[in-house]
Amino acid sequence: MADSMRAQKLDLIFQHIRHFPDFPIKGIVFKDICPILKEPKALAAVIDLFEEHVRKTHPHTELIVGLEARGFLFGPLLAQRLGIGFVLVRKKGKLPGPTVSASYTLEYGTAEAEIQTDAVQPGQNVLIIDDLLATGGSLHAACELMKKQKAHVLGCLVVIELKDLGGAQRLPSPVFSLLQC
Amino acid sequence: MADSMRAQKLDLIFQHIRHFPDFPIKGIVFKDICPILKEPKALAAVIDLFEEHVRKTHPHTELIVGLEARGFLFGPLLAQRLGIGFVLVRKKGKLPGPTVSASYTLEYGTAEAEIQTDAVQPGQNVLIIDDLLATGGSLHAACELMKKQKAHVLGCLVVIELKDLGGAQRLPSPVFSLLQC
Repeated sequence: MADSMRAQKLDLIFQHIRHFPDFPIKGIVFKDICPILKEPKALAAVIDLFEEHVRKTHPHTELIVGLEARGFLFGPLLAQRLGIGFVLVRKKGKLPGPTVSASYTLEYGTAEAEIQTDAVQPGQNVLIIDDLLATGGSLHAACELMKKQKAHVLGCLVVIELKDLGGAQRLPSPVFSLLQC
Repeated sequence: MADSMRAQKLDLIFQHIRHFPDFPIKGIVFKDICPILKEPKALAAVIDLFEEHVRKTHPHTELIVGLEARGFLFGPLLAQRLGIGFVLVRKKGKLPGPTVSASYTLEYGTAEAEIQTDAVQPGQNVLIIDDLLATGGSLHAACELMKKQKAHVLGCLVVIELKDLGGAQRLPSPVFSLLQC
């Protein structure tokens, strides 16, 4: 993809992010990605850029792993583009059958993430996807889940990275973000 | 699409649904759609069949509206195929900015669904998507939200319909389901 085309796509994505101060709690400026989903060209731009990155940097990716709930918006699209499967990381108690869990601290609160034990196989190359990287708690938990199942996390993909919170430094795998705020 | 091709796709989807008795509570046989997501051909088949239905039956659809969380897995894929936008119906408190809400009774529990007030415009033609239709509580709430915003619900799309629970009869719009159990 030409640099000018890439810049155009990033600009289109950026134009479709809204900022809501003090949501869900005081002091947080919430990044609202709903407008991206509502504009098919902006959503396609997100997947185009993720796809380009994965094909170039992680061509041996075998699975896309997505975090509930906003990772579900982008993960299956990327997985379909790449012709590979998508695995769900859900909040505790949502997945049936045998599961593995990992707890984490959110930007605002605490939670527990789960996958089904047969979701990934030992040695599989996976990429983890979410909409936003803040302190990295939920992505870290997803990395933990992959480690427990002996899968190999090639990297984490996010639409937006809140650089000041230093989430990327806390993660055991490289982060690729489309936009840095 | 030829009937034989359609039957083949439905069979592939059916093969990728698992049944877990007594989850999340005793008496419920949970339909697990995770294997569909993990097999790219099965996920593509779901979207192929939804796309065919929408193009034939609802060619003037302007937006796909998806329910958190499992509607998020299929909705953006279908919206991208159709070249239209996707709107999120979320659980209460998850969406920033002005919202409209509707409460409902789940198959197991109660909840409240929300959309952003600017998510749909009066008169817009929308289709609502989710993974499964049980008693229809959450889909009914989504229809209510659309009605409150004066959007026109052309129909509801689900992968699996639990016919015995009679959810379709409670909904104000026609239901299209790929599989009936």
